[in-house]
Amino acid sequence: MDIENKIIEELLRPLAVNKESLKLTNDGAYLFKKREMVVSTDMMIEGKHFDKSYNPKILASKLLRVNLSDLAAMGANPYGVMLNIAVPKKNSVTWVKDFCKGLKKDLKKFKLKLFGGDLSESSKIFLSATIFGFVTKRFHKQSIASEGSHIYVSGNLGDAAVGLDIHKNYKNNLIDEKKKKYFLEKLFFPIPQIKLGKELVGVAEICTDISDGLLNELERISKVSNLQSNIFLSEIPTSNNFKFLIKKNSNYKKANHYAITGGEDYKLLFSVKPKKIDYLKRKKIKNLKRIGFFTKGSGVKIFDKNNHEIKLPKQRFNHF
Amino acid sequence: MDIENKIIEELLRPLAVNKESLKLTNDGAYLFKKREMVVSTDMMIEGKHFDKSYNPKILASKLLRVNLSDLAAMGANPYGVMLNIAVPKKNSVTWVKDFCKGLKKDLKKFKLKLFGGDLSESSKIFLSATIFGFVTKRFHKQSIASEGSHIYVSGNLGDAAVGLDIHKNYKNNLIDEKKKKYFLEKLFFPIPQIKLGKELVGVAEICTDISDGLLNELERISKVSNLQSNIFLSEIPTSNNFKFLIKKNSNYKKANHYAITGGEDYKLLFSVKPKKIDYLKRKKIKNLKRIGFFTKGSGVKIFDKNNHEIKLPKQRFNHF
Repeated sequence: MDIENKIIEELLRPLAVNKESLKLTNDGAYLFKKREMVVSTDMMIEGKHFDKSYNPKILASKLLRVNLSDLAAMGANPYGVMLNIAVPKKNSVTWVKDFCKGLKKDLKKFKLKLFGGDLSESSKIFLSATIFGFVTKRFHKQSIASEGSHIYVSGNLGDAAVGLDIHKNYKNNLIDEKKKKYFLEKLFFPIPQIKLGKELVGVAEICTDISDGLLNELERISKVSNLQSNIFLSEIPTSNNFKFLIKKNSNYKKANHYAITGGEDYKLLFSVKPKKIDYLKRKKIKNLKRIGFFTKGSGVKIFDKNNHEIKLPKQRFNHF
Repeated sequence: MDIENKIIEELLRPLAVNKESLKLTNDGAYLFKKREMVVSTDMMIEGKHFDKSYNPKILASKLLRVNLSDLAAMGANPYGVMLNIAVPKKNSVTWVKDFCKGLKKDLKKFKLKLFGGDLSESSKIFLSATIFGFVTKRFHKQSIASEGSHIYVSGNLGDAAVGLDIHKNYKNNLIDEKKKKYFLEKLFFPIPQIKLGKELVGVAEICTDISDGLLNELERISKVSNLQSNIFLSEIPTSNNFKFLIKKNSNYKKANHYAITGGEDYKLLFSVKPKKIDYLKRKKIKNLKRIGFFTKGSGVKIFDKNNHEIKLPKQRFNHF
């Protein structure tokens, strides 16, 4: 049996037990449910989004979660996924076997169906997923914010950026193992905020997930909305572990900008019109934090406790 | 403006003028038509499926057509496509600009909507498309053939393999320019047999597109069907240019196996039960050729004019 068939039959088919997949015997999958859907796609490329040291099991989880986070940002219910997997020929079966461990776990955890995909050899690892979610007419489709709208984030920022730093310099023993584990977990296994995304339908004005860092996302939104984002640095939520690190660890003294520039936290960033604030409060959703508001103007301005403007850090995540 | 935004706003957004794309301002696309769909995905990777010498315009066309061919094999009507594009940072805008020329032309030609996608930098070019088509309940979803069914192909095989050979050894001046162009065209711009795929719904038993070569496809079908494919070499259709080349050009004397092993022709391979042959004939579909039949047994057997078995060539296209 050739490698491709072996991988499909022994590793992937057992994970694609659903009507839509046609048992992976066909050129494609059959989406027979006549419902409104959203669809999103994200890539993960060796050398750009991860390096060789990543465990394939982690890559599978992260690939699904990054794509699930896009569904969360739209307020959609997870339905299924198509995968593209390209890996070096050498050890490819072992690699995909490990990948499938992470895949199996998270397909189950997030009630996601594996519909199908494409497999190939490649000198560098390339992964992509195209994910499907169900929506009703009222989902997060707006991309333009309004003057006066409040800006919210849905949880701690910066932890994944610290995790990336730790992953790159693992031998750095200035951080204890327990904390290392905490931050790496945030980097490797972001939690797509599916439930929250749905709760915010009808409340939030714009809604997106913070994949490329808060500043990047706000700059994009400010631009398309033709507005200025005003952000209070002291209001940006960070974890106790993050605060401890910045305060106590000389290596991380200057890392406080991670909360606004660091990517991969996958929390939701959304705006709420002033007239809807009371409605939002009555929903009593935990861990939401108002961090600023939109005004006339352009770009992003960050203010300190004394309302003095802070110079924006230049370092950002960039797709190019 | 950063490179990513420039590419999206100036190059891709003008090609995504449809309701589903949400103008590419959102995390995903909105498929609001409540209809039954099929979905398929295919990758094209530098170093595996093409080399640096390929014009981005050709790559865009080929990427769409390869994916459209999967829709043809299912008997689906083209609806839209999600794209993943990863290219080296250097000259990326020029590259995508050229890519978009091919994209624009073929989106229009095949009435396909650009729904959205993902963009990234990458040391090697990586492309993938996830394509959507509409179907009714009766589309080509069967993967298992029956004993006694006749095997058909829907056009000339081998031309794309000659094209690949010419592309790799372009300086070879044993072939005149006009013929070179003919074969390269077959390699670069395969024609997805959309109309035929739909016509065959209700007639064909199994239906697939020949992407990896006739032998590979037949071996796969024989295996899942637990049957033997019996193929008459002299019945396999080839073009006049192909026949001329094999006969007259000493370089291509041994290339007659291209018709059965060469990939990328993207003709349809399908089976028809004996009781449906008359129905198929009444449809008067052009360029169909019966090349053999399924019997009890396993694997693929190729026979010459005198019904003597021919040894199978070992050379094949392989995803790994």
